[in-house]
Amino acid sequence: MANKRNALYAQSGGVTAVINATACGLIEAARHHRNKIGKVYAGRNGILGVLQEDLIDTAKESAAAIRALRHTPGGAFGSARYKLKGLAESRAEYERLIEVFHAHDIGYFFYNGGNDSQDTAYKISQLGEQLDYPITCIGIPKTVDNDLPLTDTCPGFGSVAKYVATSIREAAFDVISMAETSTKVFILEVMGRHAGWIAAAAGLACEGPGEAPHMILFPEITFDQDGFLARVKRAVAEHGHCVIAASEGLKNKAGDFLSETGARDAFGHAQLGGVAPQLASLVKEQLGLKYHWAVADYLQRAARHIASKTDVEQAYAVGKAAVELAVKGASAVMVTLERKSDKPYRWRVGQVPLAKVANIERTLPRNFISRDGYHITEACRRHLQPLITGEDYPPFKNGLPQYVKLKNVAVAKRLGTTFMAT
Amino acid sequence: MANKRNALYAQSGGVTAVINATACGLIEAARHHRNKIGKVYAGRNGILGVLQEDLIDTAKESAAAIRALRHTPGGAFGSARYKLKGLAESRAEYERLIEVFHAHDIGYFFYNGGNDSQDTAYKISQLGEQLDYPITCIGIPKTVDNDLPLTDTCPGFGSVAKYVATSIREAAFDVISMAETSTKVFILEVMGRHAGWIAAAAGLACEGPGEAPHMILFPEITFDQDGFLARVKRAVAEHGHCVIAASEGLKNKAGDFLSETGARDAFGHAQLGGVAPQLASLVKEQLGLKYHWAVADYLQRAARHIASKTDVEQAYAVGKAAVELAVKGASAVMVTLERKSDKPYRWRVGQVPLAKVANIERTLPRNFISRDGYHITEACRRHLQPLITGEDYPPFKNGLPQYVKLKNVAVAKRLGTTFMAT
Repeated sequence: MANKRNALYAQSGGVTAVINATACGLIEAARHHRNKIGKVYAGRNGILGVLQEDLIDTAKESAAAIRALRHTPGGAFGSARYKLKGLAESRAEYERLIEVFHAHDIGYFFYNGGNDSQDTAYKISQLGEQLDYPITCIGIPKTVDNDLPLTDTCPGFGSVAKYVATSIREAAFDVISMAETSTKVFILEVMGRHAGWIAAAAGLACEGPGEAPHMILFPEITFDQDGFLARVKRAVAEHGHCVIAASEGLKNKAGDFLSETGARDAFGHAQLGGVAPQLASLVKEQLGLKYHWAVADYLQRAARHIASKTDVEQAYAVGKAAVELAVKGASAVMVTLERKSDKPYRWRVGQVPLAKVANIERTLPRNFISRDGYHITEACRRHLQPLITGEDYPPFKNGLPQYVKLKNVAVAKRLGTTFMAT
Repeated sequence: MANKRNALYAQSGGVTAVINATACGLIEAARHHRNKIGKVYAGRNGILGVLQEDLIDTAKESAAAIRALRHTPGGAFGSARYKLKGLAESRAEYERLIEVFHAHDIGYFFYNGGNDSQDTAYKISQLGEQLDYPITCIGIPKTVDNDLPLTDTCPGFGSVAKYVATSIREAAFDVISMAETSTKVFILEVMGRHAGWIAAAAGLACEGPGEAPHMILFPEITFDQDGFLARVKRAVAEHGHCVIAASEGLKNKAGDFLSETGARDAFGHAQLGGVAPQLASLVKEQLGLKYHWAVADYLQRAARHIASKTDVEQAYAVGKAAVELAVKGASAVMVTLERKSDKPYRWRVGQVPLAKVANIERTLPRNFISRDGYHITEACRRHLQPLITGEDYPPFKNGLPQYVKLKNVAVAKRLGTTFMAT
């Protein structure tokens, strides 16, 4: 039994349409390695549950329930926006994690998240060594923002990309129909506060001359009001309408988020969010054109009904690979996706040391943005297109997608202590 | 040839995910009645194209292109927000329509729209009689708002209903995952300025205790700020989160649209639209809770990728039936959908005199709204559920839905006159 230890899996940060597919891959793989892995526990609400010794026993879930995670959006065990700082600053928290690991004989820690989470996984791996607590730490990539380095893409991104490209294409068919007497400008606000990957994905909808979107506003490109208005005007003159994808992370010349600069509510408080309504105001005031705007917000990252099959397969694969790497003795690595070819898209799972990943943010390369700053290049299209390929519809009943809710049975606590998360 | 005349089809008002399915049904049916119907023309941008003698010859489109209309959102020939007033007031316009009909030997006029359009179709049928110009006028229902009377539902509604119910369910899976440390309140703003049918559809997502949405804000129920806040507070206390569907048509006690009362932009101009951000402001200021909001706008009525199969079939059926009624000699009627049973849902196509339809708006019956005003009743669920049943996915290529763009070849003008639309 000495080499059979329990595993702990935690979801971190904003959830996605396919993070549960990763959980599915991981748990199913662990169930095939019972000689090495005992129980698979999950942190309730991610790392927060680990700190509070609030663990979930995934063995209480049926094979069918775990299988259904593959097509269920959101984070089935709960996620958390909870950032552990450096070892010096947050030592008590790291030590608490090790204490909980020890109490439940955790030999494998799988952390499924973005940049911050990979950093945390790295620090835990270091601390394990320092405290002589042997722990296998594997980072598993996840983020709709697609901003992790050293991986071809991040599970979660392909599906939001497919949602955004599909939605803007569909909205454009609506706008074209109405433009003669009604809406001439349509603005879709998309996620991606610091990286323009999602905004870029909207560009995939444009496959021929004049097709939407006619303009993409990237967070990597400083917003230029005059340039924006001129381009709207030109698109309306040329095509009769203008369809725009705008990143929520758009900034003005002063470096302020556009969403935080403008409107005040009736009480004088800053209006809450919304690059799209800001831009719509400009279009109306400066050009006098009829507009509509949409803010997809959580809909885009939860839209499992229009998930990318490629993304689902990759999400599942990184979960499975994490277990396989762990039982083979790897540690302090993040699972990656490696591209072998663009067309046909061929990929395989790889790994990189966590030390190389932590705290590096991959924004959209400049050569993925057209020279004028308002669209994507062919290089970008070649890179992104495979990631949205294929459909993977969830089962429907009564007209609605059927998603699983797990029982999430708590593991009995073994520590007499509590921990107050800061 | 005396009894073989041309047909004119026009799309009107806001388009939907399935109005082209109606066009498909109509054109395919007309191609089966070549003994009675010559060419099928379409008004470019709806009635506007008719007034301007800008007609499209649908015979120039291949059978495959017409077939593809069944899965293409938007209005393939262009639609218009252009309301003809009464016969006395707008007599010149009505006479122009008859002039164009005459020039192109139009014997059948099919008008595909909402309340205003049925009224226009009715007036044209009357004028035809007065001017001794024999014209068969058939109204075909279409509106996401679902507010036409005397029909079980309006094509277009079932698909937006399915989109809204699916989206709020998916977003709820996201919010539940994050609520412990992040977003506790999520607001989805939906269409339906005067009728709460779309808001009600969100209620279908709630199939068990505690499931989202926890609150629906209907345009039929005056917004009560205290009641709203109390209910948000209670839902968060009970479930840890609160998911809300809010109609864009929400009004305060003074009868003003909430979306027009609140925020001002940096220049002091009224902020453009958005009940959801308004409500989010309230939640933040009054309850101090973290929120997210989404405004689906056109995405909801263009989302052909998640169309209701029932809706697509009904949309096709009303187009087909319009032709069949016309060749049988019916006129001055609107095609309807008649419900034979709820479960299983059985329906058939019917007809009502246009005189009975015109200018009657069907809002959500009070007994479809729960006593407290914040949710739907079982009667409402029984009525709405069948309308979202079934999936009817469009074909995809390169990860994106493939929608058809018609050639829209113009018919040679025969009148030497132009008409300035007002």
